Amino acid sequence: MRQSQLFTRTRKEAPTDEISKNAQLLIRAGFIYKEMAGVYTLLPLGFRVIKNIERIIREEMNAIGGQEVLMTTLQDPKLWEKSGRWDDSVIDVWFKTTLRQGTELGIANTHEEALTNILREYISSHRDIPAYIYQIQTKFRNELRAKSGIMRTREFQMKDLYSFNADEAGFRAFYEQCAQAYMRIFARAGIGDVTYRTFASGGSFSPFSDEFQTLTEAGEDTIYIDDASGRAVNKEVYTDDVLAELGLSKDAMREARSIEVGNIFPLGTRFPEALGLMYTDESGEKKFPYMGSYGIGLGRLMGTIVEVLSDDKGLVWPHEVAPFAVHLVSLAGNNSDVAAEAENTYNALTERGIEVLFDDRDARAGEKFADADLIGIPTRVVVSEKTIAAGGIEVTDRKTGSTELVPESAVPDYFSND
Amino acid sequence: MRQSQLFTRTRKEAPTDEISKNAQLLIRAGFIYKEMAGVYTLLPLGFRVIKNIERIIREEMNAIGGQEVLMTTLQDPKLWEKSGRWDDSVIDVWFKTTLRQGTELGIANTHEEALTNILREYISSHRDIPAYIYQIQTKFRNELRAKSGIMRTREFQMKDLYSFNADEAGFRAFYEQCAQAYMRIFARAGIGDVTYRTFASGGSFSPFSDEFQTLTEAGEDTIYIDDASGRAVNKEVYTDDVLAELGLSKDAMREARSIEVGNIFPLGTRFPEALGLMYTDESGEKKFPYMGSYGIGLGRLMGTIVEVLSDDKGLVWPHEVAPFAVHLVSLAGNNSDVAAEAENTYNALTERGIEVLFDDRDARAGEKFADADLIGIPTRVVVSEKTIAAGGIEVTDRKTGSTELVPESAVPDYFSND
Repeated sequence: MRQSQLFTRTRKEAPTDEISKNAQLLIRAGFIYKEMAGVYTLLPLGFRVIKNIERIIREEMNAIGGQEVLMTTLQDPKLWEKSGRWDDSVIDVWFKTTLRQGTELGIANTHEEALTNILREYISSHRDIPAYIYQIQTKFRNELRAKSGIMRTREFQMKDLYSFNADEAGFRAFYEQCAQAYMRIFARAGIGDVTYRTFASGGSFSPFSDEFQTLTEAGEDTIYIDDASGRAVNKEVYTDDVLAELGLSKDAMREARSIEVGNIFPLGTRFPEALGLMYTDESGEKKFPYMGSYGIGLGRLMGTIVEVLSDDKGLVWPHEVAPFAVHLVSLAGNNSDVAAEAENTYNALTERGIEVLFDDRDARAGEKFADADLIGIPTRVVVSEKTIAAGGIEVTDRKTGSTELVPESAVPDYFSND
Repeated sequence: MRQSQLFTRTRKEAPTDEISKNAQLLIRAGFIYKEMAGVYTLLPLGFRVIKNIERIIREEMNAIGGQEVLMTTLQDPKLWEKSGRWDDSVIDVWFKTTLRQGTELGIANTHEEALTNILREYISSHRDIPAYIYQIQTKFRNELRAKSGIMRTREFQMKDLYSFNADEAGFRAFYEQCAQAYMRIFARAGIGDVTYRTFASGGSFSPFSDEFQTLTEAGEDTIYIDDASGRAVNKEVYTDDVLAELGLSKDAMREARSIEVGNIFPLGTRFPEALGLMYTDESGEKKFPYMGSYGIGLGRLMGTIVEVLSDDKGLVWPHEVAPFAVHLVSLAGNNSDVAAEAENTYNALTERGIEVLFDDRDARAGEKFADADLIGIPTRVVVSEKTIAAGGIEVTDRKTGSTELVPESAVPDYFSND
């Protein structure tokens, strides 16, 4: 699209109350707008990033047999009373609201109850499971403090998958499949090399769970990494007993600051028991299915990418999540030949199916380059008097800064793999 | 996908409190699940339909220059106090909630205030407009009664676009463009021939607006249609004065029952004035931009398609919104040759990029046919002993019921345009 038509523009300053690097950069570059603490609107560039993250997650969840649904934000208290999670002392991040008739409703922060209840309609026999069901949906959490930019917010999109297996063995097999899918997601999102599957507490549901922790000083967690095996352990369960069980030694482990970008949880039969979801096995016996949950916050993943990959000039997007593949910068000034050549390049790239942000604005070169660095599209292409005189276009890699002149005849091949 | 793996199944009965045809059929066919009155979960089949509707709307909004964003559900009361719409007596469908610190927040039912406020950051000059900005986002409305299935709900996805032009002439030109885009959307959704652009009241914002009304007995509106011009007038403004202004005559108009599937609204400068959004024109004068709003409820559109097109056997989906293009029904029984041939057909169609629901279940032919009719996928393909003996597959059109035997050699060509 033409940058002259994009309604956002870059800003010199982020709001003064915004202390996190991710939100500062994303606000300055025009990706997000802060509505209030912990509540951000996605502007066109940010929306495109989230849609790319959504696509990656959807592809990987479908690949392991996930079936996509969309559950509701408004929640009937009856379901949550059955599981004992309606009370604010049990879930302390509830937002609640009220029907005009006076009935109190919940505003969903998670969906174990809702989905388990739905499945009472559809699961009755061992032939009806396993079932792996997910959604990409907006969650609401009444956080007391929201101070990490888009990494801990009061309203955010989350992918939550729930698995229902006949027994723990079936659950364990899927759990491992999903762990591998998560590592593929984080690799495609550009943070695979600094993301560790991390042994962690299971909270109120089970003794243990697995987190996916990405190394960044902006994180809220501390983990210990065994570089030889690639395994990590969250500080909260970093005990001699746990290490012995995992076959790890404190001597070989290094401490690091990190943020949780995903988690996978054994839930056992707690919710099927609370809500009355049973199936009949091959021998006619009634049993509760064994359940797991698997979450990734899309905004948190976006914020983590920013924290990990941005540099002192601005954002740096990996290919698969970048809002555009190419930032085409025209330095035409008053030279209509340059303007025409830039238009030709824009059309040629667009016709090849390449997504291009075309900086056709009437602005100084320095301003255009600074904006391109701040916005962080992976490949910058410059068309100017100089590049035309040299018979080509100038291509710069945002991450490495390496620049080369690509002759006009070589342009189609150059972009053939984008 | 394989129907044996789809976690939903058809039901004989809808909940007894569900009186609308759209929800009854969609629940029975496994497209939606009723959480409570006016609140429905989208199950896999329904999710696919909504995603198709979303894709059609997105394509048409992008084609007229729309830029997509995602605004927030949580709303700061300050913005709504400025426009005078915070009070429940002004907007009587507010849901509200409370931060743990005690601050009351709104749960968005529309986004004029939020977007106008955001644009104070980005619009200052006549060069910054026009701007056409939209989202496809979940809205919440605290309806006193919700009784029309998915056509009037308390939680629903809506496409809302807002236009900002320098003056009324610019606004009018875009308004007409958008009206035409709406007619393309409804045509692609399969209800174009029974949907009328309808002159209507502008509510509290302007003297008049345009609604898009689809003829159905399940509708809540009454309109008057002039068949010669294709124009219609809502009963609420069906006066001699209005008809004279529109050049229409009561003698030529017929009354019909209908449902509003979209509306487009002149908003004037009301919200820019309330929130302080101004631009500087070419002569240096400060002015308020002229605004319009343009809505389509995705669930209501889905419900309307059901009301208009379904028959006594079940749902009938138009091609562009159908959850799958082909319902492949295997009548293998114990015949492994038939099962193998059905698998071959499934693979062949899938490899051609055709989306297929493959009924590979171990069930009777009658049950499979009844389910296929209820689910309403446009094309049914049967593989059975009989079709193999005849050297092909049996293809049935869901809408017309017409059936033909397509010889194996002709199958690739037959499905080449799907």
